[in-house]
Amino acid sequence: MDHYPSSMINLITNLSKLPGIGKKTGERLALHILRSPYREAEQLAQSILELKQKIRLCHECFALSDHTQCAICQNPIRDRSIVCVVENPADMAAIEKSGAYSGLYHILQGVISPLDGVGPDDIRLKELFIRIQKGTIKEIILATNTNVEGEATAGYIAAKLRALPQIKVSRIASGIPMGGELKYIDPVTLKRAIDTRYGMK
Amino acid sequence: MDHYPSSMINLITNLSKLPGIGKKTGERLALHILRSPYREAEQLAQSILELKQKIRLCHECFALSDHTQCAICQNPIRDRSIVCVVENPADMAAIEKSGAYSGLYHILQGVISPLDGVGPDDIRLKELFIRIQKGTIKEIILATNTNVEGEATAGYIAAKLRALPQIKVSRIASGIPMGGELKYIDPVTLKRAIDTRYGMK
Repeated sequence: MDHYPSSMINLITNLSKLPGIGKKTGERLALHILRSPYREAEQLAQSILELKQKIRLCHECFALSDHTQCAICQNPIRDRSIVCVVENPADMAAIEKSGAYSGLYHILQGVISPLDGVGPDDIRLKELFIRIQKGTIKEIILATNTNVEGEATAGYIAAKLRALPQIKVSRIASGIPMGGELKYIDPVTLKRAIDTRYGMK
Repeated sequence: MDHYPSSMINLITNLSKLPGIGKKTGERLALHILRSPYREAEQLAQSILELKQKIRLCHECFALSDHTQCAICQNPIRDRSIVCVVENPADMAAIEKSGAYSGLYHILQGVISPLDGVGPDDIRLKELFIRIQKGTIKEIILATNTNVEGEATAGYIAAKLRALPQIKVSRIASGIPMGGELKYIDPVTLKRAIDTRYGMK
């Protein structure tokens, strides 16, 4: 890499700060950018800046948005009585992609993690409880990840909501992935799948 | 991806035009850029534009350079009597990294490939012959790749230089990679390794 001119080294260095991109891939990408038309490189640079300048969090649900209210909160067709709580925007995008959900979201923008110094006040939990107190929400689906932090956060929210018996609180199911074979599934997942089995008739 | 705001979709689209980056990796990179400090994103965008604006080809050897003459052509220590001919800047960088070479380069910026419509006049061959005619060059090392196009290009240059017997023309060796085992080497490489064997005493 030292054998390139400084403007090339600069770009390789900056590219390799991105996750999963090392010096080698950075070099390949930089050489591609060098060969591509100026207009294309300009578009890439502009879209990076535009993302940082334009994007904000929806003031209702804290999803990524170009406006003060996100497209989902604005959509009159979405069911306003049900809110799905997720950790971050990518999780929300994954659920949207499944097409299985038509309610609103609440993006915590993090997860309770005492080891990392993240407590309940450091994520968008207070805002969730304020939304619930408005009275239109009937069900909260806890869709945090199924790792230690996600489970703890779901448990924390569920405990807090025990004081409001009119609100239904549910957790997305854990279990064997569709198309999976039992012999390859880890015991913790298997235990959860048996514990949370559902009636079929 | 459709579930993100438009500035996010824009960046993902532009990122996924880069080689080896699809929608999924593009999403991951965009989310990383979103989380990273504004200064860092700005640096990345700037270095993309700077590369496109600043970089030019050395007027001597056609290496990438921030100036009209590249660092190697400017370096008084480099041996000016020997020129290594390569296809592109990345090949030159690879040879420089090996530390085995202290002469000058000539970057063809391509390779003769009739199937792709690239003839001898479409790459920097004329400029190579003009350099040779100046009379300071004593040896040409042909270090084009060892695929069909690279071999053909090396053959073409060697044939042209037969008219100048005072110029030594050599080809980088092909053979078994260091640390390689013969049983895993393809027959074409093995044939070349035997044909071009060198004396050891």
